Amino acid sequence: MAVNLPLLVAADLKPVAGIELGYAEANVRKPNRKDVLVMRLAPTATVAGVFTKNRFCAAPVQICKAHLEAARAGNAPIRALLVNTGNANAGTGEAGLADANATCAALAAQLGCEPVQILPFSTGVILEPLPVDRIVAGLPAAIANLKEDNWFAAAEAIMTTDTQPKAASRTVTIAGKTVTLTGISKGAGMIKPNMATMLGYVAIDAKVAQPVLEHLVREAADKSFNCITIDGDTSTNDSFMLIATGAGALEVNDVSAPEYAELAAAVIALSQQLAQMIVRDGEGATKFMTITVEQGASVEECRRIAYSIAHSPLVKTAFYASDPNLGRILAAIGYAGVEDLDVSKLNLYLDDVWVAKNGGRNPDYREEDGQRVMQQSEIMVRVLLARGEASATVWTCDFSHEYVSINADYRS
Amino acid sequence: MAVNLPLLVAADLKPVAGIELGYAEANVRKPNRKDVLVMRLAPTATVAGVFTKNRFCAAPVQICKAHLEAARAGNAPIRALLVNTGNANAGTGEAGLADANATCAALAAQLGCEPVQILPFSTGVILEPLPVDRIVAGLPAAIANLKEDNWFAAAEAIMTTDTQPKAASRTVTIAGKTVTLTGISKGAGMIKPNMATMLGYVAIDAKVAQPVLEHLVREAADKSFNCITIDGDTSTNDSFMLIATGAGALEVNDVSAPEYAELAAAVIALSQQLAQMIVRDGEGATKFMTITVEQGASVEECRRIAYSIAHSPLVKTAFYASDPNLGRILAAIGYAGVEDLDVSKLNLYLDDVWVAKNGGRNPDYREEDGQRVMQQSEIMVRVLLARGEASATVWTCDFSHEYVSINADYRS
Repeated sequence: MAVNLPLLVAADLKPVAGIELGYAEANVRKPNRKDVLVMRLAPTATVAGVFTKNRFCAAPVQICKAHLEAARAGNAPIRALLVNTGNANAGTGEAGLADANATCAALAAQLGCEPVQILPFSTGVILEPLPVDRIVAGLPAAIANLKEDNWFAAAEAIMTTDTQPKAASRTVTIAGKTVTLTGISKGAGMIKPNMATMLGYVAIDAKVAQPVLEHLVREAADKSFNCITIDGDTSTNDSFMLIATGAGALEVNDVSAPEYAELAAAVIALSQQLAQMIVRDGEGATKFMTITVEQGASVEECRRIAYSIAHSPLVKTAFYASDPNLGRILAAIGYAGVEDLDVSKLNLYLDDVWVAKNGGRNPDYREEDGQRVMQQSEIMVRVLLARGEASATVWTCDFSHEYVSINADYRS
Repeated sequence: MAVNLPLLVAADLKPVAGIELGYAEANVRKPNRKDVLVMRLAPTATVAGVFTKNRFCAAPVQICKAHLEAARAGNAPIRALLVNTGNANAGTGEAGLADANATCAALAAQLGCEPVQILPFSTGVILEPLPVDRIVAGLPAAIANLKEDNWFAAAEAIMTTDTQPKAASRTVTIAGKTVTLTGISKGAGMIKPNMATMLGYVAIDAKVAQPVLEHLVREAADKSFNCITIDGDTSTNDSFMLIATGAGALEVNDVSAPEYAELAAAVIALSQQLAQMIVRDGEGATKFMTITVEQGASVEECRRIAYSIAHSPLVKTAFYASDPNLGRILAAIGYAGVEDLDVSKLNLYLDDVWVAKNGGRNPDYREEDGQRVMQQSEIMVRVLLARGEASATVWTCDFSHEYVSINADYRS
């Protein structure tokens, strides 16, 4: 029951020159589903990523960081990404690192490169050993179907509790040169990215210098995947990767170039679209909420308050019920930890309805106006702090019976 | 469906000399329920309390603080407490303060004291005007039935979404003198006290000097109500009050006296019992969990990790499902914000079952052992950090379909 998430078809997704995608049904956890994905890159490609800050970061995340570091140092550019679903390879200690390395070695041997040129990713259940044999056995099939127009199948291959594949494409013209951007993402629970989301991949066919790409991936993550939450649970496997294949005409070597700003705008817009898709398909979601906190003393305090509202089970269940029990929003603002907040100046809007005025109920607020907005599937919560110029936005969903059902049944 | 919360009867609760209780059915929000409580104190009584740190703290909380300050200053000892349910008088601005003052004035006039000698408390829906007229109209009935053995009715009168009244009594002998302690508490949702819980009242018949009582109420709150969470939502109205009526033989004037330590132990034990009753009756609860984090570098970091586990919707739904999906606990430890945590030394136990060893799955862990513990109604989660001597414990409950139902329907 995703919220206003249009059904994609393969034709919606544009190939990006310089990246081919192939999948397999490898029985990682369940039969008859795509669960292994290989993305092969042109030798000209640069890759940058951001990863979870969870201290229990998964084995593949640790290896990705090391392999990206080696690529930055010079002689071993990244040639392929390998993703499996069904098993997160997290909480698996030394054995997990060996398992992830084994999958890199197997793919490298088949693609004719070094293991350090492979980036591994896993998503699924934590604390269980990775079934290396089944993943390796699936690689020949994935390699056999590598092609540039396989993005739709790739989006399907990375799904876990997602109800729909998530992907988007766009083309932009920068300095007279056409750039194609296509991305995929997955995730529906354990979503409160801290640097990045569960899994997101965006490819562009421009040629982008490594330091520029690293700057861009952080900027895009901060404005997209780092602004969403479903349940406040930061995953052990969050990874967001930006791939510039170098196969197109545009070249960007400097963050101060005018081309950078245009490219960044396009990457950020696509990343926001992919991030919002994750919220729209949040486990059990029936509503999509945009929480905006304005007039703050700092972006940090605005984010704190926005997340406090977005994570409150009481706020989320009130939205699920379409019940304008809006005092719960005030309570969540009050316990957000902004110690010197003067609530007597605070104003709260629900879409265009002015609910709280100077910290109390707006005398002109009518319950039926709140009720009208609460019945919508898309709702804007707007908090005005009256103490500065900073603002922040967080996207989230409601909390339903279905969320409990999904997470009480996930492994079975 | 409270978890192992025995049904009380009135005879379980001992009167405390020097405090009388009276209730009324005042139709604050719903008809035919006790919703106003008056507690009248002996002139010898001292009172101390701790209150929510929510910035949107309710009007009655603000007035309680002012009246307690006046009592400390000297000439106007607290003579009565007034509690209403059904309306929290929070998020109500200046009008809310005037309303709370009006109820104090009405009760003071009927008891023959000053309004500043009354402590007001409210609990219920936020952001709605307090129905002062209905509360005031209920006062004569409450005053008419004031008596010392009304504790059971008092526990009923402060219930909101609670399914059972919560109260406990004990007597202790200190320095050869008998002391009686009786307390009541309420709360089942919006429970993550920050200084105190929704409403808790403990009365003792000892004579305790004001500074000693203030020290004791903080110590008791920190070891009881400040260790529980149901949904992580810190209420606007949390208040925990300790009343020493002075009607008994014991007198304590110094925190370094041996009598203080004995009295404190009794008050803390009773407060823990009342606090745990709140968790056992948590909205929709089917399990009671004790989360203990040991071998930490500081109590603060142990509490952070314990709360991170206790608040994770994914952990709470796994407990609801009796599913040993225990990687979710590792993820919650990992995102608790302890930046330098070395997870490779961490161990996790579920009761006596050693689940994670040195940060990975214990090779000897068997799924059926985890399954056995998860099916219990009382479960201990024990995390060993291997980085110090500090520890902390948090009590919480699981997250069920019923929680969503209760909070999607609460106002209707």
